[in-house]
Amino acid sequence: MVIVMGPEATRQDVESIVTVVQAAGVEAFVSRGVRRTIVGLVGDVTQLDAAGLRGMSGVRDVMRVSTPYKLVSRENHPQRSTVHVGGVPIGPETVTLIAGPCAVETPEQTLAAARMAQAAGATLLRGGAYKPRTSPYAFQGLGERGLRILAEVREETGLPVVTEVVDAHDVALVASYADMLQVGTRNAQNFGLLQAVGEAGKPVMLKRGMSATIEEWLMAAEYIAQRGNLDIVLCERGIRTFETATRNTLDVSAVPVAQRLSHLPVIVDPSHSGGRRDLVLPLTRAAVAVGADGVIIDVHPQPELALCDGPQALVDGDLDELATLMRDLPPLLGKSAATPLTV
Amino acid sequence: MVIVMGPEATRQDVESIVTVVQAAGVEAFVSRGVRRTIVGLVGDVTQLDAAGLRGMSGVRDVMRVSTPYKLVSRENHPQRSTVHVGGVPIGPETVTLIAGPCAVETPEQTLAAARMAQAAGATLLRGGAYKPRTSPYAFQGLGERGLRILAEVREETGLPVVTEVVDAHDVALVASYADMLQVGTRNAQNFGLLQAVGEAGKPVMLKRGMSATIEEWLMAAEYIAQRGNLDIVLCERGIRTFETATRNTLDVSAVPVAQRLSHLPVIVDPSHSGGRRDLVLPLTRAAVAVGADGVIIDVHPQPELALCDGPQALVDGDLDELATLMRDLPPLLGKSAATPLTV
Amino acid sequence: MVIVMGPEATRQDVESIVTVVQAAGVEAFVSRGVRRTIVGLVGDVTQLDAAGLRGMSGVRDVMRVSTPYKLVSRENHPQRSTVHVGGVPIGPETVTLIAGPCAVETPEQTLAAARMAQAAGATLLRGGAYKPRTSPYAFQGLGERGLRILAEVREETGLPVVTEVVDAHDVALVASYADMLQVGTRNAQNFGLLQAVGEAGKPVMLKRGMSATIEEWLMAAEYIAQRGNLDIVLCERGIRTFETATRNTLDVSAVPVAQRLSHLPVIVDPSHSGGRRDLVLPLTRAAVAVGADGVIIDVHPQPELALCDGPQALVDGDLDELATLMRDLPPLLGKSAATPLTV
Amino acid sequence: MVIVMGPEATRQDVESIVTVVQAAGVEAFVSRGVRRTIVGLVGDVTQLDAAGLRGMSGVRDVMRVSTPYKLVSRENHPQRSTVHVGGVPIGPETVTLIAGPCAVETPEQTLAAARMAQAAGATLLRGGAYKPRTSPYAFQGLGERGLRILAEVREETGLPVVTEVVDAHDVALVASYADMLQVGTRNAQNFGLLQAVGEAGKPVMLKRGMSATIEEWLMAAEYIAQRGNLDIVLCERGIRTFETATRNTLDVSAVPVAQRLSHLPVIVDPSHSGGRRDLVLPLTRAAVAVGADGVIIDVHPQPELALCDGPQALVDGDLDELATLMRDLPPLLGKSAATPLTV
Repeated sequence: MVIVMGPEATRQDVESIVTVVQAAGVEAFVSRGVRRTIVGLVGDVTQLDAAGLRGMSGVRDVMRVSTPYKLVSRENHPQRSTVHVGGVPIGPETVTLIAGPCAVETPEQTLAAARMAQAAGATLLRGGAYKPRTSPYAFQGLGERGLRILAEVREETGLPVVTEVVDAHDVALVASYADMLQVGTRNAQNFGLLQAVGEAGKPVMLKRGMSATIEEWLMAAEYIAQRGNLDIVLCERGIRTFETATRNTLDVSAVPVAQRLSHLPVIVDPSHSGGRRDLVLPLTRAAVAVGADGVIIDVHPQPELALCDGPQALVDGDLDELATLMRDLPPLLGKSAATPLTV
Repeated sequence: MVIVMGPEATRQDVESIVTVVQAAGVEAFVSRGVRRTIVGLVGDVTQLDAAGLRGMSGVRDVMRVSTPYKLVSRENHPQRSTVHVGGVPIGPETVTLIAGPCAVETPEQTLAAARMAQAAGATLLRGGAYKPRTSPYAFQGLGERGLRILAEVREETGLPVVTEVVDAHDVALVASYADMLQVGTRNAQNFGLLQAVGEAGKPVMLKRGMSATIEEWLMAAEYIAQRGNLDIVLCERGIRTFETATRNTLDVSAVPVAQRLSHLPVIVDPSHSGGRRDLVLPLTRAAVAVGADGVIIDVHPQPELALCDGPQALVDGDLDELATLMRDLPPLLGKSAATPLTV
Repeated sequence: MVIVMGPEATRQDVESIVTVVQAAGVEAFVSRGVRRTIVGLVGDVTQLDAAGLRGMSGVRDVMRVSTPYKLVSRENHPQRSTVHVGGVPIGPETVTLIAGPCAVETPEQTLAAARMAQAAGATLLRGGAYKPRTSPYAFQGLGERGLRILAEVREETGLPVVTEVVDAHDVALVASYADMLQVGTRNAQNFGLLQAVGEAGKPVMLKRGMSATIEEWLMAAEYIAQRGNLDIVLCERGIRTFETATRNTLDVSAVPVAQRLSHLPVIVDPSHSGGRRDLVLPLTRAAVAVGADGVIIDVHPQPELALCDGPQALVDGDLDELATLMRDLPPLLGKSAATPLTV
Repeated sequence: MVIVMGPEATRQDVESIVTVVQAAGVEAFVSRGVRRTIVGLVGDVTQLDAAGLRGMSGVRDVMRVSTPYKLVSRENHPQRSTVHVGGVPIGPETVTLIAGPCAVETPEQTLAAARMAQAAGATLLRGGAYKPRTSPYAFQGLGERGLRILAEVREETGLPVVTEVVDAHDVALVASYADMLQVGTRNAQNFGLLQAVGEAGKPVMLKRGMSATIEEWLMAAEYIAQRGNLDIVLCERGIRTFETATRNTLDVSAVPVAQRLSHLPVIVDPSHSGGRRDLVLPLTRAAVAVGADGVIIDVHPQPELALCDGPQALVDGDLDELATLMRDLPPLLGKSAATPLTV
């Protein structure tokens, strides 16, 4: 931590800082310049409150030097991690395709979508039984009935299931059906939910909040990790900007940045980023090329009848192209398509 | 709803649209132009899925014309509403000052802050017992012990209590102590929580999500209203933008815009908007001048020791100025400072 | 300037930094901690290239401590400045009303608008002869003919004229007619134009770029100041954010922030911020209440016929309310309405 | 164009609209619904002022249906265009690599950078002689001396030259040396400059404004096109968002979106988007994979000595990887690396 004093700060102001800091067991190095004084802090600064220091007399700025997250940071864990979901790896060696319907509607629709996903090379099935919707009048998901459908389709296809949980008190129920729990963008700072999935004993996919900085996203992951669960996959899904031509702006740079700051795998959701079917394949290519460890994609057998986000779902005709890119692109990046572990 | 067809749309595409729309009991008016055709829909369009329509062949755009919220809309309720909190009005006639510590720390600190608040003209006491914090390592609030302190301070001062609830399953507990429940910016799309406070039988203060559009904010209010609770006060608290000189950017225009779209009272949080003590009074003046129905402000007897957001709390020396502005500014806008109902 | 070394930095890396820095005549204070080393620089760092330092081996971050602008900074000029435009002051003592039509269209329309402005208490006339328009097919202004109309209306009304210049090579011409040159939001980083108005010998109103940080805005002012012209008035006119309910988001906090960082006067443009007539008066109140040194407002005798931005122009019926607020609000802030100097 | 009337609009209001619209030679289709009336306009609406209509009594919204740009639109020109720069194609068949130093500093540095560029597969040389800098105290470029160096290096290497012009009155001079004129992000709405390059008889690379919507970017291109120059290449270079981990946020979706809306080629600047050397190669891969028609990259023989943007320049060690990706990735997208025309 570095404390920058204002030009008006007195010698007394600086001494007060040093006293407070040393009381917390931290060393203070004072550099006096022509116009201002800088106090560099060295040691364990976690017990110091930056905001409190900033409020002290003569202080102009307090700059943090270390990262505020620990367990998910790559500083203490230089090797990138691989998370296994029902035997399927997500990590630095592979590009994992997760696909399925945005919302589970019927057993037939879910099975048909899962077959489409599999045909395109998917090794994990996505599907929502609990849907967080901006409008209380929109379809909110089938709930436990949807979870049962997902479990049946897993039985049928062998695909492990990724599904969203939206309330801390549904975590145990959802975890009893799912292979991986998804925390959505609207819950990226729902700390009770983050802690609950941290205790659920299942891998977690954590979507970035729609206006979360990369640091806030990693802090959210730290909430999960702090409860003992390090099987976390980060998912970039577009951020909110001034541009209205796309539903969100896919922040493709966030993938390598997050991979440098954290050891956790990072995947991309090209469907929700763009919000338009014609952008899904180009954005999937961009995601794989930038180094994402996987992608999660909406497919639907009849998107015009979809109860949720139909316009961004891939249809049958797109699957060949998706399969081709998932086959050809990863090897250029020293990765392979993910395949389940043979037991 | 207006459907805009692309230049490539066929007569058959237009007819399919008309069929689908009429099946939903809505009238379709087709206007054929030189380059494109426009279909205007008139009637109850709530059963039509805009996204589904957008996915149909030949459709270029689907534009919504009515607002998607109903209960909180001013269209059906032209008179602006007043919400009463423990006898204190928040509404078009008054400018209500809510003040207190960001976090409840001790009985002494809370009482001292409440006395400061009262001296400045506050008629409601704010104070957090449950704090949503970006870092799992930061102070998370005293929980129920904090609620008891608030209740004791209410006893002592007569000030009704506004306090935040961060988890749906704490709602009953918090409601048993509080006069008004606050839903914070990070929970602005935590729909389970919104529904729970909608059923709690206490007035709710709903902060705007840090990247929520005004429409999304009103949709969040609609979630609460839909559960039978219309005692909702909207609170603008700054939005996330590219500017880093302030913690958030106070969107002062949102006050008159939301007041025109909704009948609900709208207040402003100048403390969290700016995140700097020196901005609290100027932003409070701006909030009252733009027509806010109240303001909610952090005060703290010793901000340098505060466990949460100390640098933005007002201190003793600022209170006179706050009291003066709360006395002089509202009359220029045809409003008065809020005073409790005499029973 | 503070240089933060990464945990992997070698002793050799730190020594290279010290060598480079000392070669530039700057002192380096090295603080070695458990995990990393911090180098504090003290002295004249203007010859050091932060970007170059950041590229050196072992460096993790380079943090600037002083402001990068000098002439417009309040650090070296603690007294806030007053700029005089044709005898009318803009500064800390007053709230100056600048009003007139967005675009000069005809002598009659301009005179009528000037009379409206004057009736509301304006002491300066705004009006555009050169209009920067997003579309090449939109009305681009009358050019020199517009300037002549403005000069005639000044003759008639006594109101000094503020008008925009959009090209460096029109500066001399525009300055020969105008009392104050306006640089618009789209030209906030047109450095050739900034330098040209810096040499024009007339006061300048510098609008904030629509996505400029406050620091970039002050750097743009520094370009003007550096050419010898310190008669600069900063104008906040809304920034670009994700919110679409208003044309721009008025950043009302920018007024006190800029006033603390710079000695230059700061005014607000409520018309272009909101882009809606019904927001002009509320935003004007907010601007004056937050401490702005003036406001600039569009008025038009027949807005529905306006060739530019008609929907945001005030009309006759609004003028009384504007005059009332310009009379009643400034005294609450220890300011008075600006009146021309009596010679 | 579609005009949406408010619920309060009278029959008289609607008739006024129809009169105004028909006077402009446009047909009006009136659809009266239960709550509101919609007026659809068909015909040549370019003479109608949307803003003026919006200001009329009873009007709630005016929605544009056609694109406001014509010459650069793909609606009237479905075939995507190829622009040739000194014989080198930029267009749908190829991925063109443009590389060189951010700023021209010396003949030796420029030649060394050009050789690096060529080794990586570049067929066009970039290099700045006029630099728009946020600070007036930063290096502003060598001016005409820089242009002469670029011309000499072109002589030596055979690489045609792309260089920025920042002032309308330098256009003729810069065009006398350069093969392609670059308009930078800060000048994306400097309409005088756009018109000047439209008349210069040289291809133009138009960078997207840092907060320009895709539509505004295409409108800026329309300014150039309207002066008779259709040899325009659009360049996405990152937009301004709340995220501070990268200098800008590369909006990779803008590439396919702009390619669908406009027939002009679209390239990407990965160096300025991320502002960090370690992101240049990942972002280049993402750009090529999403379908960009080229990339423009900073290279520098000694980035730690660079006078401009050193930290984002690629160095020798990166070039092999760049060459490999430029060879392997384009064929997966049905494109080839650009090679000069053999005459």
